[in-house]
Amino acid sequence: MAELASIDRTAFAEWLLRVGDNALILGHRVSEWCGHAPALEEDIALANTALDLIGQCQLWLGLAAEVEGKGQTADQLAYLRDAGAFRNLLLVERPNGDFGVTLMRQFLFDAFHAELLRALEKSSDPRVAEIAAKAGKEVAYHLERSADLVIRLGDGSAESHSRMEKALKSLWAYTGEMFLDDATDAAMAEAGIAPLPSSLKAGWDETVNAVLAEATLENPGQAWQHKGGKQGIHSEHLGFILAEMQFLQRAYPNAVW
Amino acid sequence: MAELASIDRTAFAEWLLRVGDNALILGHRVSEWCGHAPALEEDIALANTALDLIGQCQLWLGLAAEVEGKGQTADQLAYLRDAGAFRNLLLVERPNGDFGVTLMRQFLFDAFHAELLRALEKSSDPRVAEIAAKAGKEVAYHLERSADLVIRLGDGSAESHSRMEKALKSLWAYTGEMFLDDATDAAMAEAGIAPLPSSLKAGWDETVNAVLAEATLENPGQAWQHKGGKQGIHSEHLGFILAEMQFLQRAYPNAVW
Repeated sequence: MAELASIDRTAFAEWLLRVGDNALILGHRVSEWCGHAPALEEDIALANTALDLIGQCQLWLGLAAEVEGKGQTADQLAYLRDAGAFRNLLLVERPNGDFGVTLMRQFLFDAFHAELLRALEKSSDPRVAEIAAKAGKEVAYHLERSADLVIRLGDGSAESHSRMEKALKSLWAYTGEMFLDDATDAAMAEAGIAPLPSSLKAGWDETVNAVLAEATLENPGQAWQHKGGKQGIHSEHLGFILAEMQFLQRAYPNAVW
Repeated sequence: MAELASIDRTAFAEWLLRVGDNALILGHRVSEWCGHAPALEEDIALANTALDLIGQCQLWLGLAAEVEGKGQTADQLAYLRDAGAFRNLLLVERPNGDFGVTLMRQFLFDAFHAELLRALEKSSDPRVAEIAAKAGKEVAYHLERSADLVIRLGDGSAESHSRMEKALKSLWAYTGEMFLDDATDAAMAEAGIAPLPSSLKAGWDETVNAVLAEATLENPGQAWQHKGGKQGIHSEHLGFILAEMQFLQRAYPNAVW
């Protein structure tokens, strides 16, 4: 960790929370489908996606705790922070809605997530590169699956098409935040740890436009976009997620299996 | 409190939790409508009902804490017990559903609640009689309102009638628990503190049948009934209510305004 002296440790820890919190919150959202999906195959696939994401979150938050250097653990970061300390994108805290909304949210995030992890494999920090290589394999599969389903449902029945169109419109304004750069991102890019989010936009556009075209869905192209999640300004939904997710550790502090 | 020596203090505290938890959990459920009701007038009326119930819960749980004699407060009982320690009826933890389900649940409980409080005004424990007299005035109004709305919606449009019919059918199997007697109830009845729940059934039947007839709704008359709430065996719904309701005190222990 010699090189840490030369980079901004606070910015690095903050950036790790962003990556880890995206995986944690989306993982929790997807896990809400467990036992409720429209088909057994989908139920298992969604549960596996949730498990992958929560596994990734454990690695990212573990590293965040190490970099932060305050003696915290990944579990403490996951279960004892309140909403204002979470750094996930607003997109991943959106409610599940119907299966179409869940799939569309997954696809829009997967396409970003795959770009990000691919870039992180070349991180100047070997621990980041290692986690990215492992997570990247999982996320390549998530993207393959969600893209495939977006195409099948978008280019499916009139009902499934209209639901996917509605899902896309309802989520589009939450995609812009993924590509916003701020001071933390600039510090990470300068240290060679992570790419600037804005640099991932072209690759994401390409993937998303190709899939939407095949799905016969129109890119909403709406300019106005929500933001704030990365800086801890969240929608009302995050509080309800945390109330449920953190209940056990809050009610029974330090409980272990 | 001299007379307490001669009665079963544990049973009395347990019984007070039942009365208090019904008010707390239904109050919380009804409060979920705040800002979401179909008309401003209804939003205000539901919020007032929730406030009445939570105010009553404060009195009942305050007395429960006193009788229990372990130095707890009403707040601690409300915010620091886990689901298995709650003693409310399953009926009051049922999800809100649509406005019809909320109103029907309210009416079925109000009709019971009014009978109970009327009987409790003659309690051998003056503190119980005093709370019952105060709460009874509020609940008489709750019942007047919910009965009126059940009639208007049941005997309304085809759509509102069908929704009320569906609501009644979905809730009916949760009404039987209100009139089940157990050892705690027997101890309370023997001490003259509270009536046997079964003794309230005839009055409830009369109110409910009269209102359903006017609402052109058929009494489902279904024999099989759920039970367990009074003994701490709850549905999955209570855990989610508590996660949300208790978040603040769990996350920020002993926080005060």
